Amino acid sequence: MNDNRKITKLTVRDIRFPTSLNKDGSDAIMKNPDYSCAYVVITTDDGLEGYGFTFTVGRGTQIVCTAVEAYSSLVVGQRLGDIFSNFGCYWQELAHDSQLRWLGPEKGVIHLALAAIINALWDLWARIENKPLWKLLVDMTPEQIVSLIDFRYITDALTKDEAIEILRKGQEKKKEREEAIKKSGYPAYTTSAGWLGYSDEKIIRLCQEALAEGFTRFKVKVGKNQEDDDRRVGLVRQQLGPDMMLMVDANQVWGVHEAIEWISKLAKYNLTWVEEPTSPDDILGHAKIAAALSSFGIGVATGENCSNRVLFKQFLQANALQFCQIDSCRMAGVNEILSVYLMAAKFEVPVCPHAGGVGLCELVQHLSIFDYISMSTTTEKRVIEYVDHLHEHFVDPVKITNGCYVVPMAAGYSSQIKVESLGSFEYPTGSVWQDMFDKGIYERP
Amino acid sequence: MNDNRKITKLTVRDIRFPTSLNKDGSDAIMKNPDYSCAYVVITTDDGLEGYGFTFTVGRGTQIVCTAVEAYSSLVVGQRLGDIFSNFGCYWQELAHDSQLRWLGPEKGVIHLALAAIINALWDLWARIENKPLWKLLVDMTPEQIVSLIDFRYITDALTKDEAIEILRKGQEKKKEREEAIKKSGYPAYTTSAGWLGYSDEKIIRLCQEALAEGFTRFKVKVGKNQEDDDRRVGLVRQQLGPDMMLMVDANQVWGVHEAIEWISKLAKYNLTWVEEPTSPDDILGHAKIAAALSSFGIGVATGENCSNRVLFKQFLQANALQFCQIDSCRMAGVNEILSVYLMAAKFEVPVCPHAGGVGLCELVQHLSIFDYISMSTTTEKRVIEYVDHLHEHFVDPVKITNGCYVVPMAAGYSSQIKVESLGSFEYPTGSVWQDMFDKGIYERP
Repeated sequence: MNDNRKITKLTVRDIRFPTSLNKDGSDAIMKNPDYSCAYVVITTDDGLEGYGFTFTVGRGTQIVCTAVEAYSSLVVGQRLGDIFSNFGCYWQELAHDSQLRWLGPEKGVIHLALAAIINALWDLWARIENKPLWKLLVDMTPEQIVSLIDFRYITDALTKDEAIEILRKGQEKKKEREEAIKKSGYPAYTTSAGWLGYSDEKIIRLCQEALAEGFTRFKVKVGKNQEDDDRRVGLVRQQLGPDMMLMVDANQVWGVHEAIEWISKLAKYNLTWVEEPTSPDDILGHAKIAAALSSFGIGVATGENCSNRVLFKQFLQANALQFCQIDSCRMAGVNEILSVYLMAAKFEVPVCPHAGGVGLCELVQHLSIFDYISMSTTTEKRVIEYVDHLHEHFVDPVKITNGCYVVPMAAGYSSQIKVESLGSFEYPTGSVWQDMFDKGIYERP
Repeated sequence: MNDNRKITKLTVRDIRFPTSLNKDGSDAIMKNPDYSCAYVVITTDDGLEGYGFTFTVGRGTQIVCTAVEAYSSLVVGQRLGDIFSNFGCYWQELAHDSQLRWLGPEKGVIHLALAAIINALWDLWARIENKPLWKLLVDMTPEQIVSLIDFRYITDALTKDEAIEILRKGQEKKKEREEAIKKSGYPAYTTSAGWLGYSDEKIIRLCQEALAEGFTRFKVKVGKNQEDDDRRVGLVRQQLGPDMMLMVDANQVWGVHEAIEWISKLAKYNLTWVEEPTSPDDILGHAKIAAALSSFGIGVATGENCSNRVLFKQFLQANALQFCQIDSCRMAGVNEILSVYLMAAKFEVPVCPHAGGVGLCELVQHLSIFDYISMSTTTEKRVIEYVDHLHEHFVDPVKITNGCYVVPMAAGYSSQIKVESLGSFEYPTGSVWQDMFDKGIYERP
């Protein structure tokens, strides 16, 4: 790509939505999340813009903003051609910057910040090519895709040649699959009904609404109280009938033994997976839990708190997960996520992205659509999380029909937030926040 | 502890030393570190102060400072009695804060920031008790020690009862060991001679100087070029004779297979361990490397980039390390580090702390002295890293005699930096930095 345009500006803003007021997003670990993001705009010398963000849950978003600014000197001044014709190398330069790297390495705040920047660059690239991100990826050759990826630390699980082989197979009949997914959409499941802070009545009502909208796959939060869980999961199963797909999510609340015990008692409800049963860093613990639950036909799902490709590699090597839940903002953007999709394809583990929060649905749909067309070639056992929150703030919001994501067709990564939303929800200066401070709903920082 | 004093202030400063000018600290991954720290002072209503920090390597230290400030509201206003009489619970409150947690969890910037705060609290406590930190710990009962620890996610490897059992055994003859270690000091090894950026002549000179000072244990950085490594490690082995302890450190430069191949070729130099052969997150990879190198009698050492107790737990469970290198600032302070010492004791793996950088030697000596007196009860196979850099900036600097750490006797955690050093090296306002900006040695930020 011979593009002489230069990046002249990188800005980052702290955007927070007061979701904790309604207990939206409440689970066994996160009692009061205010869904937020560090929102990045990258501008070129001819006024093009790319939009990216990383998802956060309130306090601490400013730390990620500070980290984004620390990367700024490695981004501003770069030529687009130099970045996109060698994106894998550029990704490595940022991820392995010899001083910033110490603060991770490749994890936590520093990696979340890099995710926001890399997401913005991908959005910019897709806009330049006038394609939705999934289509930009679908139109690349296997060699181009592989050149995006940093294989450091993963070649013992997946070599470049193996990755190319998987992608070559994915080239066969990809036109047919592109047409098919445009017609059918990509399967979704809903988490909206099952937050831990909701009353039984609200759960029943939300289940019925979701069924009426065409959802056939549901997830419920568990882990606070064994009896409550039994009642709440039973309640949802009753609404769904015996066969619809039902999952539970513990958000890391248990130790290894406790997880096995607790979930065994819920096995009667025909559960597809238990999500985040313990620490997201505990590969060997997840492997033990997976082995213990396999006799119930319950898989282990994890990944939204999995920091990087090296940890995912081990989860796959150890049979520690049966459903791989990549997050679009915790790993450092599309480049790294692709390496996990390819490892999962090799290990024959379905990828079912984490979504919800702010804008995560908007991003991950592109990844799974590309997965279907060019890597896994199937949607069997695959499903994207869907949560009906905060989409109204996006310029190109997700659309759901009959419990499926409608394939997005606008250019870019669907990552742009409306200007008026930014003005209202920027923290602490936005008009909504100022109003809440005045009314004493939140304390002024 | 019934102490009604309140914490009234928490400050954090960005302190950087321009060590990259001399290639001090250069290795296969970190080409130009400027050893730095986020330096925390906690002040009580009666004017007592506790000092703590976390080590960083230059750019990005401001991110950690922002993170420390994000924790401030959870620290300022607390009563000392409430913290220290229930320190384990207080640690959990901070580490599992429901919004900040998302940014880790328990890793990266957020955990580094927490380390600086927890270190300052321990320093404050030891000053109040008028004891060096190691002695404060030695004088606690097994039950008190265990109450400091968050056992979440580790009970499948170590239960509270097992921890108490280890500590009870450590009570036997502890007076004798306290006297013994005060006489002998704690064994150290030196990394000062073997940085990757040093010339052969400088390496020889530094080896001879270290031998003359009484050092008998050495470490060399490797991983840039196989031939250079063969020459440089050979050179050091020649200076030491065949039997002195010699280790190599690759600073994460290799993939799993490459690590095995590279180190096999250096095995002829009688190496005790290879340190950080690959990604610090790769438990299964380290296990493979350890298995492959065991026939050469070479152990695997890692830990300075290991984020938390859950990762250490797995390294121990998987036989992935033979030397456990805790860092005093990457995990969130003494509370979490104690859990790793206790797990290591159970798995019979020696703990050999990472040190060097800024002030890491000052901190870890306290931990290993406590380990000797009250947990492992031996110094066999145990050794603390020593690097002769930047000690002059500390009020109570480490002392080395005959290749051993002299037991520190001043009250506190040896973590206080001199006021004049803070004034000179605060970034970017300090006088040394202003002078370097004026002279064009560094670019003004």
